[in-house]
Amino acid sequence: MKNNFNNLAENLANCGRGFYERGWVLGTSGNFSAKMSENPWRVCITASGNDKGSLDKTHFLEIDENAEVVKGNGKPSAETLLHLTIYNHRQAGSILHTHSVWGTILCENHAKNGFLKIEGFEMLKGLAGVQTHEHTEKLPIIENSQDYVALAHVIENVLRENPDCHGIYLRRHGLYTWGENIAEAKRHIEIFEFLFEVLGRSLK
Amino acid sequence: MKNNFNNLAENLANCGRGFYERGWVLGTSGNFSAKMSENPWRVCITASGNDKGSLDKTHFLEIDENAEVVKGNGKPSAETLLHLTIYNHRQAGSILHTHSVWGTILCENHAKNGFLKIEGFEMLKGLAGVQTHEHTEKLPIIENSQDYVALAHVIENVLRENPDCHGIYLRRHGLYTWGENIAEAKRHIEIFEFLFEVLGRSLK
Amino acid sequence: MKNNFNNLAENLANCGRGFYERGWVLGTSGNFSAKMSENPWRVCITASGNDKGSLDKTHFLEIDENAEVVKGNGKPSAETLLHLTIYNHRQAGSILHTHSVWGTILCENHAKNGFLKIEGFEMLKGLAGVQTHEHTEKLPIIENSQDYVALAHVIENVLRENPDCHGIYLRRHGLYTWGENIAEAKRHIEIFEFLFEVLGRSLK
Amino acid sequence: MKNNFNNLAENLANCGRGFYERGWVLGTSGNFSAKMSENPWRVCITASGNDKGSLDKTHFLEIDENAEVVKGNGKPSAETLLHLTIYNHRQAGSILHTHSVWGTILCENHAKNGFLKIEGFEMLKGLAGVQTHEHTEKLPIIENSQDYVALAHVIENVLRENPDCHGIYLRRHGLYTWGENIAEAKRHIEIFEFLFEVLGRSLK
Repeated sequence: MKNNFNNLAENLANCGRGFYERGWVLGTSGNFSAKMSENPWRVCITASGNDKGSLDKTHFLEIDENAEVVKGNGKPSAETLLHLTIYNHRQAGSILHTHSVWGTILCENHAKNGFLKIEGFEMLKGLAGVQTHEHTEKLPIIENSQDYVALAHVIENVLRENPDCHGIYLRRHGLYTWGENIAEAKRHIEIFEFLFEVLGRSLK
Repeated sequence: MKNNFNNLAENLANCGRGFYERGWVLGTSGNFSAKMSENPWRVCITASGNDKGSLDKTHFLEIDENAEVVKGNGKPSAETLLHLTIYNHRQAGSILHTHSVWGTILCENHAKNGFLKIEGFEMLKGLAGVQTHEHTEKLPIIENSQDYVALAHVIENVLRENPDCHGIYLRRHGLYTWGENIAEAKRHIEIFEFLFEVLGRSLK
Repeated sequence: MKNNFNNLAENLANCGRGFYERGWVLGTSGNFSAKMSENPWRVCITASGNDKGSLDKTHFLEIDENAEVVKGNGKPSAETLLHLTIYNHRQAGSILHTHSVWGTILCENHAKNGFLKIEGFEMLKGLAGVQTHEHTEKLPIIENSQDYVALAHVIENVLRENPDCHGIYLRRHGLYTWGENIAEAKRHIEIFEFLFEVLGRSLK
Repeated sequence: MKNNFNNLAENLANCGRGFYERGWVLGTSGNFSAKMSENPWRVCITASGNDKGSLDKTHFLEIDENAEVVKGNGKPSAETLLHLTIYNHRQAGSILHTHSVWGTILCENHAKNGFLKIEGFEMLKGLAGVQTHEHTEKLPIIENSQDYVALAHVIENVLRENPDCHGIYLRRHGLYTWGENIAEAKRHIEIFEFLFEVLGRSLK
C-alpha cells in the first residue's frame, strides 16, 4: 500500500514543489522517482518537461525496467536512463535530481581530481549511515553529456568505484542523490544543497 | 477558448505573483502579456503601476495593435510599445519582463561588446529549440532609455540582427523574454534568471 | 471610510507579514504607520514588540499628535517619535521602517559624506515623482542613537535640508521611507531594498 | 494551561516550520524545546529525525529531568542532553537550535579567541535585557563533538563563565539560544541569524 503509485507520486510532487520554491528545479529542470515494486520491477517517475512549481500526481509515469511507460500520460525524460542505472547499482527506494545555483558554481570551481570533498560539518551526519561530523564525503563530479547511453556507462563505473558515495554531480548540470525512501532522498538533497551553499559562499 | 482574456489574465497573474515572491518584480516593476488572437490582433497585458504581489485578472487590459485599450480598467504601461515591437518580430504567444538583482548586476559587469554570452550549462536546454548544453546563448544588452519610440527602433534592429536570441536585456533595467505560450515564456524567465545568478555569483 | 482604523491596520499588517517573509523585519524589528485623519490628528501605528510574521490588526494602536494612545492594546514603540517627526515634515499618508541585511551592510561600507547616492537604475522611476532612470537619489545616512528626542531633532534638520529625499537611513539600524498612502510607501520600501541589494552585492 | 504539552508543541512546530522555510533547519537538522513545569520537571522537545518542514505536535515528546520519555512517540535526539544542561544553568522557558549557512561560515572565519563578537547594531536590542545598540554580544564558539557527555560538560563551563551570553555556537554545527518563553527564544534566533548574515556577507 505504502508504495502504490498515487502515494509515491503525491509524495514526490510535494518534494518537487518544495524544491521549486527554493530555486533548485527552475525552468522545468529536475526529475524525481520512487520504486513501486521489485517484481514486477516498477518505478514512478516524473514525465518530461513539467513546471515543478505546480507538480501533481498527473505529471508522473509508471515505467518498467526498460523505461517503457506502463501507466500515465506524457513521455519519460531522457534522464530516465540515469535513474535506471542508479537503481541497478544502489539499494535505492527513491532518486531525486536537482539543478541548483550553488551546486553549479561549486562544481566548476571547487572540484579536485574529479571529486568534491566535504568534511567536518555536523550536517554530514544526516547522510545515511554517517555517524560523525568527521566523515569525509567524496562526491564524484562527472562531465555532462547529451549522449545518455555513454553517460549511463560512466555513472555505472563511478558507482562501482565509489561504493560509499551518497550522490553524484553532473558538472554544470546538477545533483543526483538517493535514499531508501523518498524522505531519505529528500534529506540527502537538502544536506548536499546546504553544504554546496556553505562551500560556495566560502570560495575566495 | 484557451486564449480567452480571463484564462490568459489569470495565468499571467499567477506567473507574476510567483516572480514577485522571488523578488523579480518588486516595487510594481515588470509587465506581462499574452496574445489573444491574430485577427483581430489582440493582446492581454498588465495595466500600469500595480503591485505584482497581489496581481489578479482585474489588473489586465485587452489592447489592439495600436496599444488602444479595447477592454479593462487602467492605462497601458509606457513599455507596451516594447511588447508590440517584439510581437511584430517574433512568433511569440507571450512576452514577460522582469527586473532582478542578478540581471542588473550582471549586465553592468559582465557584458562584452553588447552581448552577455552564456554557454556550457545544462539549463540552456530549457530554451526553445536548444538541444545541448554546448549551446552559446548571446543575449543582446541594450542601453536603457526613457524615449520608448527610439528604444523600440533599437529593439527592432537588435531582433532583426539576432534572429536566434531568446531574450534581450535593457541595461540597469531588466529582461524581456518570450515564448510560444505563457508556460514557455515563464520557463525562459526562470532559465535566464537562474543563469544570471550563477554567472553573477561567479564574478570575481 | 478608506482611512478607518481597521482598514489601515489590516493593510499595514499585510505589508508587515510580507516584509517579514523577505527577512526585512526579523526579531520583532520594524514599525509601520498610516494617517487616519488630520483633524483630529490621528495615526494608526504598530504597538511595540510584536512578531511581524503574525502581525494582525490587534497589534496596532490609534495615537494622537502627542503619541498618546487613543485606542488599542499595548504601548507605542520608542520610535513613534520618529514617525511623528516625519509626518510633521512630509506630506505622508504612511511611514514604513525596515531592518534589512543589505541596508545594514551598504550603509556601513558605501556611504560617502553622509549620503548613499543611487543613480542610473530603472527601478528609481518607482519613487514618487521620478521620471527617469537618470535620477540621482541621495539617501541621507544618520548616526543611530538611543536618545530619541535628539535623534528626532537630527531627522527634522535632515528632512528640511533634503526636501527631495524619499527616505532616510539610520546607520546599522534601518530604513525609513514614506508615501502618500500605504501602497506608495510599500513601493518605496521595495525599491530601496532592491537597490540596496544591487549595490551591496556589487561592493568589492 | 499556557504551558500544556499541546500548546507548546504546536507553538514550537510553528516556529520550526518557519525556520525550515528560511533554510535554518534543513535535512531534519535542529531541535526545539519548551519547559512545561518545574515540579515535576517536564520539557516538551522534538523527537529525533523528523523533517522540520512538516513538523506538527505529533513529532514532540514529553521528557523528565533524566531525558526519559513520559509521553509521545519516537526517541529523543542525542542533543537532548545539551538542552537539559542549558535548562540547568539558565532561567529558560524555551531552547531553540538551528543549523544555518551563515552561522556555519561565520564561526569558521570570524571567531577570535573562542568568541564571536557582535557590536554596534540596533538589532542587538532585541536580545533580552539589552538596552542599546552599543552593546557587545560575545557569543562563545565551542568545538563540535559526538561525545555528548563531554560536550555537555564544556557547555556547562561556558555557561558558568559567560553569565551574560544569549546563546552558544557549536563550530560547523549550529546555534543554541534560549528565552523566557518560545516567543523570546524565537526572537533571539532571528536576531542572531540576521546578524550572522550581516557579518558573514561583510567578510572580505
